[in-house]
Amino acid sequence: MTISKNLIWHNQTIRKKDRHRNNGHKSCVLWFTGLSGSGKSTLANAIDAYFFNNGYQSYVLDGDNIRHGLNKDLGFNSIDRKENIRRIGEVAKLFVDCGTIVSTAFISPFQEDRIHVRQLFEPNEFIEIYVRCPLDICADRDPKGLYKKAMNGEIQNFTGVTSPYEEPANPEIILDTSHYSVDESIQMILMFLKQKKILV
Amino acid sequence: MTISKNLIWHNQTIRKKDRHRNNGHKSCVLWFTGLSGSGKSTLANAIDAYFFNNGYQSYVLDGDNIRHGLNKDLGFNSIDRKENIRRIGEVAKLFVDCGTIVSTAFISPFQEDRIHVRQLFEPNEFIEIYVRCPLDICADRDPKGLYKKAMNGEIQNFTGVTSPYEEPANPEIILDTSHYSVDESIQMILMFLKQKKILV
Repeated sequence: MTISKNLIWHNQTIRKKDRHRNNGHKSCVLWFTGLSGSGKSTLANAIDAYFFNNGYQSYVLDGDNIRHGLNKDLGFNSIDRKENIRRIGEVAKLFVDCGTIVSTAFISPFQEDRIHVRQLFEPNEFIEIYVRCPLDICADRDPKGLYKKAMNGEIQNFTGVTSPYEEPANPEIILDTSHYSVDESIQMILMFLKQKKILV
Repeated sequence: MTISKNLIWHNQTIRKKDRHRNNGHKSCVLWFTGLSGSGKSTLANAIDAYFFNNGYQSYVLDGDNIRHGLNKDLGFNSIDRKENIRRIGEVAKLFVDCGTIVSTAFISPFQEDRIHVRQLFEPNEFIEIYVRCPLDICADRDPKGLYKKAMNGEIQNFTGVTSPYEEPANPEIILDTSHYSVDESIQMILMFLKQKKILV
């Protein structure tokens, strides 16, 4: 078939609902929030792998692809941390508009910032997932050695040590990773998404 | 089938090449650059519709979803215009990493800014498409009434009137929209993408 014959061009703008229909599922942001070491990235990548392996459109935004790219101009003072979360929220909105289930894995410690992001979205599009884990267990896990540095004073404004973490007031999902396995946590998220008819 | 039985979780991070395999095509950014009124948005949305209707993963970044969202803190002075293009480049990179063919429709008048964006990408991922159209035809089309305002002095720093447009030195594709139809232009882009094996 030549390109010419295969060309189906309509003077149309593809909308979010069109993408949902083509993909066979709705889109949303799974906003994982919690202390460093609580398991946000592990869960975000695990559910992304589940989605990928089951034919859903999904993606992960985390420090690896945001901090060295879009937000590399931002530091860790309070203004920059706020702007960091704002931009992540706006990028997540673009992915949701594109029909993708996007999982974000950022500490996002401040309630006000998370509320601002939630307000960017339509109902049932912003799923706040509080990855709850006691500070001492997170500090024991210390996957990046950051707690050690924070306690030594090598890192300033470290959430849980020298900067507060404000627990979500009304998260859609709470996952206690000191009690539940990754598989169990993923199943709880999937149940929620099916209940809300984001997945069918 | 219960969620439990359906759960296929691997401790894996999904990579760009995995997404390409699942989608059946590679990802890239189609970076449309040219004067206001040259046809960038029309072409970007037209090829997005073609991709959508033919089962490819695609998306459009343009003023509608960027200027009022991610970049709403930016104005039109030279520093902000540079930052505007930088952020669009970084967001486009995320979409390419997600396996999506992302079309961007921004004037992006400065060669230096476009070169910086190009450097974010791997070979054959950044497809610069110069949407060439004589200034007088763009000003006649004036779809948003901006040329009129610029010539009346109501808009400052307007590309082509009071601010320069630097033509791409080595764009992958040049489309003269004063000579070619939308359909013809789309076919030229598709031929390029098949030649580069981005589409099969």
